[in-house]
Amino acid sequence: MSTNGKNKNYKLKQKSYSKNTNQQKGRNNNTRQSYAKLTKKKGRGNQPKQAKKPSVKISFLGGLNEIGKNITLIECENDIIIVDCGMAFPDGDMLGVDLVIPDFTYIEQNADRVKGIVLTHGHEDHIGGLPFLLSKVNVPLYGTPLTLGLVENKLREHNLYSKSKLNVVNAGDTIRLGCMSVKFIHVNHSIPDSVAFAINTPAGTIVHTGDFKIDCTPISGEMIDLSSFAKVGDEGVLALLAESTNAERPGYTPTEMLVSESLDTLFKRAENNYRIIIATFASNVNRVQQIINCAEKYGRKVAFSGRSMVNYMGVAQKLGYLSVPQNILIDIDMLDKYPREQIVLVTTGSQGEPMSALSRMAYSDHRKVMVGEGDFIIISANPIPGNEKTVGNVVDELLKRGCKVIYESMYDVHVSGHACQEELKIIHKLVKPKYFIPVHGEQKHLRKHAELAEFLGMEKKNIFIADIGTTVELNEKYMKEAEPVPAGKVFVDGLGVGDVGSIVLRDRKHLGQDGLIIIVASLDVYDGHVISGPDIVSRGFVYVRESEVLLDEVKALSLEILEDCADNNIHEWGIIKNRIKDEVSKHIAQKTRRTPMILPILQEV
Amino acid sequence: MSTNGKNKNYKLKQKSYSKNTNQQKGRNNNTRQSYAKLTKKKGRGNQPKQAKKPSVKISFLGGLNEIGKNITLIECENDIIIVDCGMAFPDGDMLGVDLVIPDFTYIEQNADRVKGIVLTHGHEDHIGGLPFLLSKVNVPLYGTPLTLGLVENKLREHNLYSKSKLNVVNAGDTIRLGCMSVKFIHVNHSIPDSVAFAINTPAGTIVHTGDFKIDCTPISGEMIDLSSFAKVGDEGVLALLAESTNAERPGYTPTEMLVSESLDTLFKRAENNYRIIIATFASNVNRVQQIINCAEKYGRKVAFSGRSMVNYMGVAQKLGYLSVPQNILIDIDMLDKYPREQIVLVTTGSQGEPMSALSRMAYSDHRKVMVGEGDFIIISANPIPGNEKTVGNVVDELLKRGCKVIYESMYDVHVSGHACQEELKIIHKLVKPKYFIPVHGEQKHLRKHAELAEFLGMEKKNIFIADIGTTVELNEKYMKEAEPVPAGKVFVDGLGVGDVGSIVLRDRKHLGQDGLIIIVASLDVYDGHVISGPDIVSRGFVYVRESEVLLDEVKALSLEILEDCADNNIHEWGIIKNRIKDEVSKHIAQKTRRTPMILPILQEV
Repeated sequence: MSTNGKNKNYKLKQKSYSKNTNQQKGRNNNTRQSYAKLTKKKGRGNQPKQAKKPSVKISFLGGLNEIGKNITLIECENDIIIVDCGMAFPDGDMLGVDLVIPDFTYIEQNADRVKGIVLTHGHEDHIGGLPFLLSKVNVPLYGTPLTLGLVENKLREHNLYSKSKLNVVNAGDTIRLGCMSVKFIHVNHSIPDSVAFAINTPAGTIVHTGDFKIDCTPISGEMIDLSSFAKVGDEGVLALLAESTNAERPGYTPTEMLVSESLDTLFKRAENNYRIIIATFASNVNRVQQIINCAEKYGRKVAFSGRSMVNYMGVAQKLGYLSVPQNILIDIDMLDKYPREQIVLVTTGSQGEPMSALSRMAYSDHRKVMVGEGDFIIISANPIPGNEKTVGNVVDELLKRGCKVIYESMYDVHVSGHACQEELKIIHKLVKPKYFIPVHGEQKHLRKHAELAEFLGMEKKNIFIADIGTTVELNEKYMKEAEPVPAGKVFVDGLGVGDVGSIVLRDRKHLGQDGLIIIVASLDVYDGHVISGPDIVSRGFVYVRESEVLLDEVKALSLEILEDCADNNIHEWGIIKNRIKDEVSKHIAQKTRRTPMILPILQEV
Repeated sequence: MSTNGKNKNYKLKQKSYSKNTNQQKGRNNNTRQSYAKLTKKKGRGNQPKQAKKPSVKISFLGGLNEIGKNITLIECENDIIIVDCGMAFPDGDMLGVDLVIPDFTYIEQNADRVKGIVLTHGHEDHIGGLPFLLSKVNVPLYGTPLTLGLVENKLREHNLYSKSKLNVVNAGDTIRLGCMSVKFIHVNHSIPDSVAFAINTPAGTIVHTGDFKIDCTPISGEMIDLSSFAKVGDEGVLALLAESTNAERPGYTPTEMLVSESLDTLFKRAENNYRIIIATFASNVNRVQQIINCAEKYGRKVAFSGRSMVNYMGVAQKLGYLSVPQNILIDIDMLDKYPREQIVLVTTGSQGEPMSALSRMAYSDHRKVMVGEGDFIIISANPIPGNEKTVGNVVDELLKRGCKVIYESMYDVHVSGHACQEELKIIHKLVKPKYFIPVHGEQKHLRKHAELAEFLGMEKKNIFIADIGTTVELNEKYMKEAEPVPAGKVFVDGLGVGDVGSIVLRDRKHLGQDGLIIIVASLDVYDGHVISGPDIVSRGFVYVRESEVLLDEVKALSLEILEDCADNNIHEWGIIKNRIKDEVSKHIAQKTRRTPMILPILQEV
């Protein structure tokens, strides 16, 4: 799957391209020089005159037709840049899987050509795949301070930090990576220090928005750097890759500031009576900042609960992204030392995750926090699609314990971190790309985003809805689908990466749905007759005590088959086992309409 | 768990009660007579003067703190009336369970006292448990024509129809059941022929709303009979039991008529180009009526897809609830005989159910319908909480195939069948109950509904949030919690009812998450040494081929333990098996951080 041959081809065409494009001028001077140098080395003097323009290839290893594991490859000349390297959480049918990472085959095969990984922000769906990639291919990383602070934590956990190459880049800076340069552009999102990229390639500029929203009054830092988007757009953009999470939502995402007002109202409501517990995303530093501000105003101490909350806030505080007044933070072990009306507990579990701090509180399983009538609980997050039920269950449990629970969106205790349609339109109009590829979303989000681009006047042929594995090749003249790259979902289960696949999952599903019946017998090595057994063992099928008759029937049937095989000189175990499987399955299905896994195990003695 | 003793007690108090209450007068005359007669027989003349007032007991076997399996028992004197008998669909953690029904123990134990089951409407969460109850206790059923039409179908499937006692009651009629009478009051809901009940008992009147909304312009039939609610309210109501499904939603549920306009717009948009496919609830006869009306207007034929859709529409048409113009219905096999722009296909699968017709179309698994670019697909339903993800997946698959898909609520292609807050308020104010018990909902719905009642001026002590198993005893003087009744979730899996419980589910979950490793060995009957094996069989754990080393280690470890036990004269299999389980688990966890089920099976030869 090497594309070396093709890349050589492209290099042949660089000279004429350099002459014909304007966008390499001015601020992108460095890039052009580097590019020119690169071609010089390989002797561009001998190229035919009619050489085609160079092109850039964009390949997607994740983030399309799925939520999460965002990762995009930009390939030009002999160089590859990787944008983000995320993980995804398993769907309900990926039984026992802890997390899902991209298939890194293509990166491994082309490791020598990868110049670096640029990171848009520190969310798991953008950095969570890094330890698994870096353990195979040690590529340098480039990110903003907070993003790299979070990456550092992650790499330390995986014992990868010491050999990793982390390079801090601030928003506004441009870095060189091979024949390409990457400008980091500040954006607003639900974690500080998020950036978009303007990637200048010999074939033209690619803008990748990362995750973003337009927040004119953010809690910390500046508003999104729209003027940089405008400048890049004025200089000419070949392609825009923009996130599609909220592409279905009309209008604007409200400012994070809106949450402050709601929190203030709720803190007032809870005054003098309640301990306040707020669940939110561990990475939402700005949200926690607002909670701390409110706590200070109302004279409450703040404690953190949940491992990831403690981790994130540690990094954010250390790097100066969380401003904490003196003496306001207390350890969770100190909760009892203060009256409940002087406490705010900030916790994980806003998605109803079974092992999270809030869930443990709801189900009385938290070692340090017991909740009840004196608790005022705010869920400062909306359920991610698929989590509605678990969140609802946690809310119900808390209500049953007598807690006040604020969970509706009507209180504005949460705003999204992603751009809605009007914000997307602004970016499209500022960037003015020739081509558009919607990214980060399921099919319905990508389609909606494509329709939005069409609505803004872009021709349909200049919009491409890609899939993971797709490679799009483009330059000033064309955009076309090129040779795909290997892509898929690699399952991480415990320490195992990729050792659980479709067959194992199919078995797990079967076992989980219907249970199993094991039939064990020892056969005479000489004549095949049964010496011991058959014994019947079942798990996850029925209450054994209530189904003795049925299991006795299975035993008798199996014995009959084994003896019949022996009598008829059938000694091939494959055949014997299949007969047992078939006939026992049929019997069970007839009696119960169920289809447990039937597992005959024979031994010779 | 018999309450006969208590009931005798109550009977003693009837005389004084009769004197003190007004609501027995007038139209409820019959009831009072019957009641009086009943007490006469038992010789009420000898009662002490200060005898307490009679009371009514309300017990909940389902529908509280859960969605579905609605069933309420009203018990007064020696008589029991059952309101509805529904089923629920399994949660994600009820692996392999087909459906969930109530625990009928209390009904079975008191079968002779049950005077009848009154049914509010024909939805599965109100009638789906009937076959399982009637197979144990043959109680007469009372319902409106459509409801009983659907019940008949269901009972025929279970071979129960011939011996069942179905009694048609029309809205507006009152029936006598023992010492109680039940007035059927017409309401609007997402299935025709829905009713609420005013149940007149010797202790006072209980109003049970069933599921309802207030629709001033319903598609078929009349608006909800508010004047009957008003009349009952004026005569005095002891307790209101009202549904809480939409208690969190402010305002009003829009009229079903609203959908007509949206459908018209969409039919116009699809004209001349597309086949129209509409997915909706199979029971939503009025929705299908609107689709048929639209189809007639735009000259399209209508076909039904999905077993339950065909069933429901068959019953609805036979009983006159679905008005179908001549020659408009075609069989699904006839689809190819018409151009696609002359077709409307009405299908099940609006919840993304994996085996439903729409899902099969989306995943190219439908035997008769292939979908693609020529299809205009409308999902005329909102996802029920928990189904968002599966519905989203189906939409994505359809979009990938090039179908136009209308799935957002912005097109008003669906309205709820349940009352929002303003509608609930109207019923509360018309019924003017002394006590209020919110029903049909999870904790958060019940709480919201209770808050609404409080907001309307009801005292907190007169509102009771119950749970399944709770018995509430009430009369003019008090409302209190009485002895609970057995209640829970009984799982139906294939033909088995109740033979899958928490242990089986725990095993299924374990097997489904982590798979299993079986260790089989034949031991010498005399000295316990290994004669054959140990053999290692794994399923759902890892790819065996990639984990040979690990499984070889398990084999060696098991052999070592077995031989060590034999050497040390340990022959108790429980001890040997536990040692294997413990040590193999530890080894596996250390190597993989996984916890498969370890199943040692020993045989003696």
